[in-house]
Amino acid sequence: MKLNGVPSRTIWLERDGWSVGVIDQTLLPHQVVRAALRTVEEAANAIRSMQVRGAPLIGVTAAYGVALAMRTDPSDEALDEAVRFLAAQRPTAVNLQWALEDLRETLMPVAANARAAAAYRRAGQIAEEDVETCRRIGANGLSLIKALAERNSSRPVRILTHCNAGWLACVDWGTATSPIYQAHDAGIPLHVWVDETRPRNQGAALTAFELKEHGVSHSLIVDNAGGHLMQRGDVDIVIVGTDRVTAGGDVANKIGTYLKALAAHDNGVPFYVALPYSTIDWGLERGEDIPIEERAADEVLRVQGRLANGEITSVAIAADGTTARNPGFDVTPARLVTGFITERGICSASRDGLLSLYPEKKSAAA
Amino acid sequence: MKLNGVPSRTIWLERDGWSVGVIDQTLLPHQVVRAALRTVEEAANAIRSMQVRGAPLIGVTAAYGVALAMRTDPSDEALDEAVRFLAAQRPTAVNLQWALEDLRETLMPVAANARAAAAYRRAGQIAEEDVETCRRIGANGLSLIKALAERNSSRPVRILTHCNAGWLACVDWGTATSPIYQAHDAGIPLHVWVDETRPRNQGAALTAFELKEHGVSHSLIVDNAGGHLMQRGDVDIVIVGTDRVTAGGDVANKIGTYLKALAAHDNGVPFYVALPYSTIDWGLERGEDIPIEERAADEVLRVQGRLANGEITSVAIAADGTTARNPGFDVTPARLVTGFITERGICSASRDGLLSLYPEKKSAAA
Repeated sequence: MKLNGVPSRTIWLERDGWSVGVIDQTLLPHQVVRAALRTVEEAANAIRSMQVRGAPLIGVTAAYGVALAMRTDPSDEALDEAVRFLAAQRPTAVNLQWALEDLRETLMPVAANARAAAAYRRAGQIAEEDVETCRRIGANGLSLIKALAERNSSRPVRILTHCNAGWLACVDWGTATSPIYQAHDAGIPLHVWVDETRPRNQGAALTAFELKEHGVSHSLIVDNAGGHLMQRGDVDIVIVGTDRVTAGGDVANKIGTYLKALAAHDNGVPFYVALPYSTIDWGLERGEDIPIEERAADEVLRVQGRLANGEITSVAIAADGTTARNPGFDVTPARLVTGFITERGICSASRDGLLSLYPEKKSAAA
Repeated sequence: MKLNGVPSRTIWLERDGWSVGVIDQTLLPHQVVRAALRTVEEAANAIRSMQVRGAPLIGVTAAYGVALAMRTDPSDEALDEAVRFLAAQRPTAVNLQWALEDLRETLMPVAANARAAAAYRRAGQIAEEDVETCRRIGANGLSLIKALAERNSSRPVRILTHCNAGWLACVDWGTATSPIYQAHDAGIPLHVWVDETRPRNQGAALTAFELKEHGVSHSLIVDNAGGHLMQRGDVDIVIVGTDRVTAGGDVANKIGTYLKALAAHDNGVPFYVALPYSTIDWGLERGEDIPIEERAADEVLRVQGRLANGEITSVAIAADGTTARNPGFDVTPARLVTGFITERGICSASRDGLLSLYPEKKSAAA
């Protein structure tokens, strides 16, 4: 997607052929600063500090993190240690574990002196696959938006989204935003309601920024406002991303997603979740069993932003000594989800729905 | 309630006997600054700029605003103009209209040269009535918290609240917080989940501050988190305030209340609304007919807080040129409300429930 008018990606190999370039997303939308990751520790830190975030991008970054580790020590022990270390940085997104397991399986049969090259190759493939997967998610989701546009041609299709499941969360296109970009590029009039998504404001900082850079009409709203807009008939469809979908169809996503799903259900608004196959956890049936990351209280007690002089800083919103709780995700039960948009098509949020698109998983999900 | 250990109120007559003292709530929790209102324009500005806010306190401030107007011109025309002017400052809270109508009816039969004194007297009465009304709301709500404490004595009663329906929104005690303060003072172990309540963060700035000053255990959470806490069984009861309740039992309150009511309903958590009689709009049946204030986009695009050096400022959270929508309230349908806590007792959220407590309104609500 475009950044300052230039087609861009979120992660790339630098010209030296081995260090890994990323956009430091903690400074968006105020500054576009690129960073180079040169060690597995730097890759892990980028994931933990959320310089890179979003389930698919975390997976790709972790894959490159293994490659960086293999450059200095390609032993079995170092491979195990890199996988263990990177996996521990964020507990909820399953793509991270998925990408790391893929790298381990790819590298184990490879001779030590060839592992670094094999790791870079595989990480690059995962990145390219993500682009193609997200493109297909968008092509499939486009049909839903087209149908809504045909039903009422006198006004734009109004889409609500939460957090950032955009190209900044992936390598390109995004998951939830891919249908939006493809509908926009196809000339369908759209308006996107962007939840700001406290505590880290990924909606305000990332999704609104992405949409602006690509020229898609949108309004920022506080997380409290979506229910009211649905009650007033101002939302035609909700599309969100996810960090993990269980085999039973429950959806872990950024904290607050569940509240929007409840409101959509209460108002008859279709609620779709866009995801690549790598986000499905076939080994888990019930959403209640997904580990929910508890993050630092400071994210709740402070808000980052830009002063009038352009400086990026944070302000305290509560009195000194106030305590806070900060669960990073919640689980939306399958019963509140109208459907899944994947690279293979659209299905119901259920075991049967998922297996209709991924029949090869029948044994895994048994 | 206590402020810096000293029993305090939100509004008072200054020592000069006519100017009206208030706490400038836009600076809380960072600074406790008092302001004196000396003209009807200053009273109106205090309401519009939210130096004073909260349905009951707005009503009392408007009543004193009429008194200030009568000091300079006690004519019928000036009375009408003051009522019209003050009523226009905030459209959703019905207490504002209620207090102004009360003042008009009180003053119309009074000779012009006695109107200012009568207005001060009546405004003072309304303030005292509010204190007593809130105290009774708390005594009635206390029974609910007591029952929850008896059901599970091994842990504190966990109460979630949204926005600030505390003593800072009233003259003393608060509405939603009055049962909390009375339970705390009665020695019942409590923990309060405080929604930060974007965009103006009244939860972080006012409710958490109030609870801290009074010594009540609490945690600040983002508005997105309450549903997750309810899913995990960490909330025993939700108590919120309201800006207007219709004769049919629908509830207008700070934006986001509806989402918490949906989550409470989905998880079997009792959802109560605390209110004085002056918040009931007997002339309106359906919540959809309540006017919803649309506030400035800047409240969404910026967040106010305290820098490390103590300076109060605001930071921009989105890119320049981002547009925002900012509805200030939403309507929770009566079907999602377990009950109303009023100064006369507890009733169901319905016409029959309200009339059981206010039988004298049978003709008004017919």
